[in-house]
Amino acid sequence: MIRGVLLDLAGVVYVGDHVLPGAIDAVARLHAASLPLRFVTNTTTKTKQTLLARLTRLGLEITGEELFTPGQAARGWLTEHHATPELLVHPDLKEEFAGLADHKRRAVVVGDAGEAFTYDNLNRAFRALIDGADLLALAKNRTFKGSDGKLSLDAGAFVAALEYASGKEAIVLGKPSPDFFGSALASMGCAPDDAVMVGDDAEADVAGSLNAGFASALLVRTGKYRDGDETRFTPHPTATVADLPAAVQWIVARLS
Amino acid sequence: MIRGVLLDLAGVVYVGDHVLPGAIDAVARLHAASLPLRFVTNTTTKTKQTLLARLTRLGLEITGEELFTPGQAARGWLTEHHATPELLVHPDLKEEFAGLADHKRRAVVVGDAGEAFTYDNLNRAFRALIDGADLLALAKNRTFKGSDGKLSLDAGAFVAALEYASGKEAIVLGKPSPDFFGSALASMGCAPDDAVMVGDDAEADVAGSLNAGFASALLVRTGKYRDGDETRFTPHPTATVADLPAAVQWIVARLS
Repeated sequence: MIRGVLLDLAGVVYVGDHVLPGAIDAVARLHAASLPLRFVTNTTTKTKQTLLARLTRLGLEITGEELFTPGQAARGWLTEHHATPELLVHPDLKEEFAGLADHKRRAVVVGDAGEAFTYDNLNRAFRALIDGADLLALAKNRTFKGSDGKLSLDAGAFVAALEYASGKEAIVLGKPSPDFFGSALASMGCAPDDAVMVGDDAEADVAGSLNAGFASALLVRTGKYRDGDETRFTPHPTATVADLPAAVQWIVARLS
Repeated sequence: MIRGVLLDLAGVVYVGDHVLPGAIDAVARLHAASLPLRFVTNTTTKTKQTLLARLTRLGLEITGEELFTPGQAARGWLTEHHATPELLVHPDLKEEFAGLADHKRRAVVVGDAGEAFTYDNLNRAFRALIDGADLLALAKNRTFKGSDGKLSLDAGAFVAALEYASGKEAIVLGKPSPDFFGSALASMGCAPDDAVMVGDDAEADVAGSLNAGFASALLVRTGKYRDGDETRFTPHPTATVADLPAAVQWIVARLS
């Protein structure tokens, strides 16, 4: 029985600045079916507030409670663990970490820093790590598909670089962290085995949610999807469908 | 029986622009003992010619035949495999790849590019990889110790980043590649089980040469050495000694 749906955003609802065909209507159809719904994104180039405003502008009806971002999870981790961040993130995300108390414990926080992934910034992060800082990865995605339609290096590559050089393993806060999926599910009172995830990332979205105990996970052939992604990571998707409207069709057909 | 000695350069003979205390005399002592000697370096910021000139300036007597660099090995690989390089290397190394014939097959060549490790350059390399290029790592060292006396990110971190994002495994050309050690040994007609390696990198120098079948490998506590390196990688060093003069003492004491 499906009692809750988690949707990825980039590559599923929109790509770059464009809403994908039928995506807004598909979300409305889930709302109309009274299915509890949450958006779980690994986007780390915008604060949660900026992302909410952007989604509203794109025509998506969404409240702050329905959106889960790795930045928000990282802020929670830092507060809980009394740690001060050393930020290696996009300039637009820095605001998400404003006003945290100063502590002795340090944590290097890595997001999709884009052009800010310079040698000097990475080396500074590396030195903080060997001086004892924890390594927090907002996400460890390998690639993303940008507005130019081409695959690009995502934050995961730089997390892997820092792990390799420092010998430390990153604590991943966004997908596929079971805690991250768990927070979103808990907010709608849904157990993992009543939940379905929809995403374009066969690893973080699909294998990640299935590993976290989800009943099913659908891979869409939009966004960063590449031929062969169905079998590239384990567990494989429950089903692979064309796009979000097809995923919603799959879900609605399985209701009661 | 020791019949041949391989020495690392950076961190063993010199650090930054300074020869380490006693290093020149230690090399002279090996020469005086008529021990065949080769220098195997993972330095990838200079062409072999520039490096030779620099070593001579520092007071080291060395010929081109005694020096093995990853740049030289990469040029050999590209020629042998009819591949054209896409260079992600230090600007000073580019000359090493001048005049190669143009082929359809491509290979991304990664060295210590320093400031040239920008997001755009890394992303260009990533896209070449997913378009089918091979990944050649001049070296996969995690760290190096520069003139400022601090550990810094070495090329290996960026190789790891590209491997992670592209799903391709790098072909490593410098240490610890058995082919690289093998070329240096072959040039002096020395079998691995008659050879000893001296280095400050417990992984690439020490574990690498022992995995390539060397009789012994000495770890020096100069250069990038950090407490605990003796046991950080497997196999462990045959012995850990203070510096190059102590390593030469160890070697000379075992002759005949």
